[in-house]
Amino acid sequence: MLHTNENRATLLLSCPDRPGIVAAVSNFLYSNNANIVQSDQYSTDPENGMFYMRVEFDLPNFDHSFLTIKKEFEPIAQTYEIDWRLASAKRMKRMAIFVSKEDHCLLELLWKWRAGELFVDIPLVISNHSDLQQTVESYGIPFYYIPVSKETKQEAEAKQIELIQDHNIDFIVLARYMQILSSDFVQQFPKQIINIHHSFLPAFIGANPYAKAFSRGVKLIGATAHYVTDDLDEGPIIEQDVLRVNHRYTVEQLRVAGRNVERLTLSRAVAWHIEDRLIVFGNKTIVF
Amino acid sequence: MLHTNENRATLLLSCPDRPGIVAAVSNFLYSNNANIVQSDQYSTDPENGMFYMRVEFDLPNFDHSFLTIKKEFEPIAQTYEIDWRLASAKRMKRMAIFVSKEDHCLLELLWKWRAGELFVDIPLVISNHSDLQQTVESYGIPFYYIPVSKETKQEAEAKQIELIQDHNIDFIVLARYMQILSSDFVQQFPKQIINIHHSFLPAFIGANPYAKAFSRGVKLIGATAHYVTDDLDEGPIIEQDVLRVNHRYTVEQLRVAGRNVERLTLSRAVAWHIEDRLIVFGNKTIVF
Amino acid sequence: MLHTNENRATLLLSCPDRPGIVAAVSNFLYSNNANIVQSDQYSTDPENGMFYMRVEFDLPNFDHSFLTIKKEFEPIAQTYEIDWRLASAKRMKRMAIFVSKEDHCLLELLWKWRAGELFVDIPLVISNHSDLQQTVESYGIPFYYIPVSKETKQEAEAKQIELIQDHNIDFIVLARYMQILSSDFVQQFPKQIINIHHSFLPAFIGANPYAKAFSRGVKLIGATAHYVTDDLDEGPIIEQDVLRVNHRYTVEQLRVAGRNVERLTLSRAVAWHIEDRLIVFGNKTIVF
Amino acid sequence: MLHTNENRATLLLSCPDRPGIVAAVSNFLYSNNANIVQSDQYSTDPENGMFYMRVEFDLPNFDHSFLTIKKEFEPIAQTYEIDWRLASAKRMKRMAIFVSKEDHCLLELLWKWRAGELFVDIPLVISNHSDLQQTVESYGIPFYYIPVSKETKQEAEAKQIELIQDHNIDFIVLARYMQILSSDFVQQFPKQIINIHHSFLPAFIGANPYAKAFSRGVKLIGATAHYVTDDLDEGPIIEQDVLRVNHRYTVEQLRVAGRNVERLTLSRAVAWHIEDRLIVFGNKTIVF
Repeated sequence: MLHTNENRATLLLSCPDRPGIVAAVSNFLYSNNANIVQSDQYSTDPENGMFYMRVEFDLPNFDHSFLTIKKEFEPIAQTYEIDWRLASAKRMKRMAIFVSKEDHCLLELLWKWRAGELFVDIPLVISNHSDLQQTVESYGIPFYYIPVSKETKQEAEAKQIELIQDHNIDFIVLARYMQILSSDFVQQFPKQIINIHHSFLPAFIGANPYAKAFSRGVKLIGATAHYVTDDLDEGPIIEQDVLRVNHRYTVEQLRVAGRNVERLTLSRAVAWHIEDRLIVFGNKTIVF
Repeated sequence: MLHTNENRATLLLSCPDRPGIVAAVSNFLYSNNANIVQSDQYSTDPENGMFYMRVEFDLPNFDHSFLTIKKEFEPIAQTYEIDWRLASAKRMKRMAIFVSKEDHCLLELLWKWRAGELFVDIPLVISNHSDLQQTVESYGIPFYYIPVSKETKQEAEAKQIELIQDHNIDFIVLARYMQILSSDFVQQFPKQIINIHHSFLPAFIGANPYAKAFSRGVKLIGATAHYVTDDLDEGPIIEQDVLRVNHRYTVEQLRVAGRNVERLTLSRAVAWHIEDRLIVFGNKTIVF
Repeated sequence: MLHTNENRATLLLSCPDRPGIVAAVSNFLYSNNANIVQSDQYSTDPENGMFYMRVEFDLPNFDHSFLTIKKEFEPIAQTYEIDWRLASAKRMKRMAIFVSKEDHCLLELLWKWRAGELFVDIPLVISNHSDLQQTVESYGIPFYYIPVSKETKQEAEAKQIELIQDHNIDFIVLARYMQILSSDFVQQFPKQIINIHHSFLPAFIGANPYAKAFSRGVKLIGATAHYVTDDLDEGPIIEQDVLRVNHRYTVEQLRVAGRNVERLTLSRAVAWHIEDRLIVFGNKTIVF
Repeated sequence: MLHTNENRATLLLSCPDRPGIVAAVSNFLYSNNANIVQSDQYSTDPENGMFYMRVEFDLPNFDHSFLTIKKEFEPIAQTYEIDWRLASAKRMKRMAIFVSKEDHCLLELLWKWRAGELFVDIPLVISNHSDLQQTVESYGIPFYYIPVSKETKQEAEAKQIELIQDHNIDFIVLARYMQILSSDFVQQFPKQIINIHHSFLPAFIGANPYAKAFSRGVKLIGATAHYVTDDLDEGPIIEQDVLRVNHRYTVEQLRVAGRNVERLTLSRAVAWHIEDRLIVFGNKTIVF
């Protein structure tokens, strides 16, 4: 969605469900002159379940009120055991993109970014190959080539982490990055790494999904965008989509179809993350 | 959605947007021991716009609390100029179905009703033809055959209205009812009549949409479910869907495709109406 | 597709690809006064691949010409090592439906059959439960209740086979039949049994796919129609489809969504089988 | 589809339907050593209807055989009154793109072209604005800026036509070109100009379709790719698609959704044109 309002903020929260949460939150926001424009809530079970909420609101005198809210919500949060995050729609998140050689997901993100469809900063792109350097730089974005081999992996990840920290990156998008990140790396960025998997998970887990799909004779090709966790291909699913294919498709043509569904699926997931629409609960996501 | 909670109620409201509405409503519900399980809000514009809200909540001691809420919300409503409706998820709405000769929309509704997918009572089906009498009665539902001609239209509608009132009908579904209702009839049931139009409105308005679609060579066949207003084919759209077709389809085969998209589109719209997910604003609908 | 032409026949064939096949077949049909109205071909590889073809044609003086063609095509078939099947669009196939307790797939087939959308005879329905007897009989179709337990399975299948043979059944549809057929049974009806699997195969193989989909947090629910082979859930896929779901869906609501995608997917697969649009090659299908 | 075979050609033909056409064509191809790999046929009516056919085949000794076929098919064509076109899959078509200021359709085509998904040459891009000059040139494609005003339109079109002729252009894609071409221009390139219309035709004909869609409260946003004829928005439809939207979408957000469905719809239509999959009949298209 396009953000046109300079005074907009978003509050995301989760806590054990019990009566009074919505009233407490909305009273608090009201007393701080917030005007709620959109609000979504979800309870896994009103009795002993978890409660999730996303509120989007406008704040007059934004800069001052935003800080006040950030400070003064903590006591309420403690009362209700709320896990929360407050985001200003005005402040752009900072996104790092990791790529290898394939450019379709990268280009989809860059176009949407330049078209104003993704309200985000892209301070850098990191790649284990130099192929896409010129493409990335033509968008005015710095490109860092960090080759990765079995021997240099640890060192390469150290460099990546340094770059991410130096650039104050908020989240990382793996746009067909063909390296498996180490457990150490992943744990440094919990719920901050989005990957696109080239199959309709949990079907065709692992490598060569299009060859597998071909030999199984499927009639739909899918893609899955998910948060990255330690368990490869098992992180919380954000979005999935499919494209119709038929018996005439060769493995190569399935791959082409896959590219098209991958880039659309990933860019939707990234947009939702940017707009603070996603909450992870257990191994699932809520898309508000 | 399937209703499993015996203590659930839904509050739908609309009013001029201004700060404090959500806080007022949620305080009120909290003080009446309600536990909000789902809530959706939409503002056309935080400044001078309209505000729409749907809250689904559980009530301990349901029967007593429900009446209290119904009585005591009025003062709040007046303060904020709120137009509101409170519905018990426990109470089944009463739906009348109008049909002519085609059975596909009727049967889709009856199956979903018997399968428990539509939580609704169907006290009667009314038709201007007798063809579907046996089908309807095999579901244990009374069937009323009221033929309509130019001369008898007024009289026929009078009979229909009498039946609707006698059976305490909450809303009417025109499941391919091939008669145009009079302005008088429509005005007696505002936002209470759902029609399925056999095209992707506003394309192919009026009669013979499949012949028109055929001659125009379209690649998708659509259907539109909408509330009925005085302006034929111009009422607020509830749901639309399409089905892919190609040059091999004859007019008759387009009609078959149309039947399939019509019944799915209509049944989704009816389900949302039953679950109190729909608010009409101007000539549009909000689907919460 | 609706069949309106009384004089229509379909020839399906497969053989090793080599030049001249199309010419030989079309010359043969031409010399028998056939007028080709639709023809589809597919070659896995022009050099040393397999060639598949479907021709739909009109025959003047149908009954006589049809028999002539059936007799005289054999020499050509032998020359080109063609595996072939000739079907008259005039002759209705005879379909047996197997069900258990769930009626959604059964009813979809029965409605489409009565609406003339499935050009087929349904001489009987067989079930291991008696629940759907009345429903089936209200369509004027004989219902056979054959309970199945571990001990009686062999005997039950013997009864089923006898019924199928007595009624000259051409193919069997498992419309949510909750019994696994024995290897002996399956081998008697090669490429003649269509099953609907309640997941997007190969994801969620086996039992309880909706519980699995729920715990994995998927965003799409799928269904797969396939021919039954000895390998459970591994037969050639005919059709697949999906329906969008979200975090609010309970396991039960996923099941409801599943029912809707199952019945649409199965009925498309059955229609294609009836219209002789399907050729099995290896573990895949061609849908012409 | 990706072309991997160097020896492939495509024959497209249409003629009054009568027995023997397929036999005549396939005999002719066989006697010229062609090996048919795909063939599609469609008859509007076997009696007095029109017959359409597309054959894709491999030719050993390609260059020589292709010319022979081109020369020797004419007598057969005259016998059957066949309108035909023979294309070599080896020879790239030459595509000109017309744009104005919006880049989404242009970029989709350029990315697919560079990724090898569109097997085509793009000798030039013509625009009535200079905004996209740098973008186009970064792909190594010459960009011609030809401003158009009411007074200079005739002169501008003369320049455009000269460029198209000088570059031996086979077909033109209007990728959101915001000028109406004159009748003279259109008639010079029959069935050679593809346009993307920003609505689901025939709904919302003309300007500002997203404002119209917003005020009508539609639930799906569509796009239509069509061949350009003298009748604005009335040319033969090649492809249509839709995207789901809801009440939260502003006009601007509908426009963003529209951009995404436009670029996908247009690029599919262009791919089919490149692969010689399209035949225009009357005001419709056949997509083989």
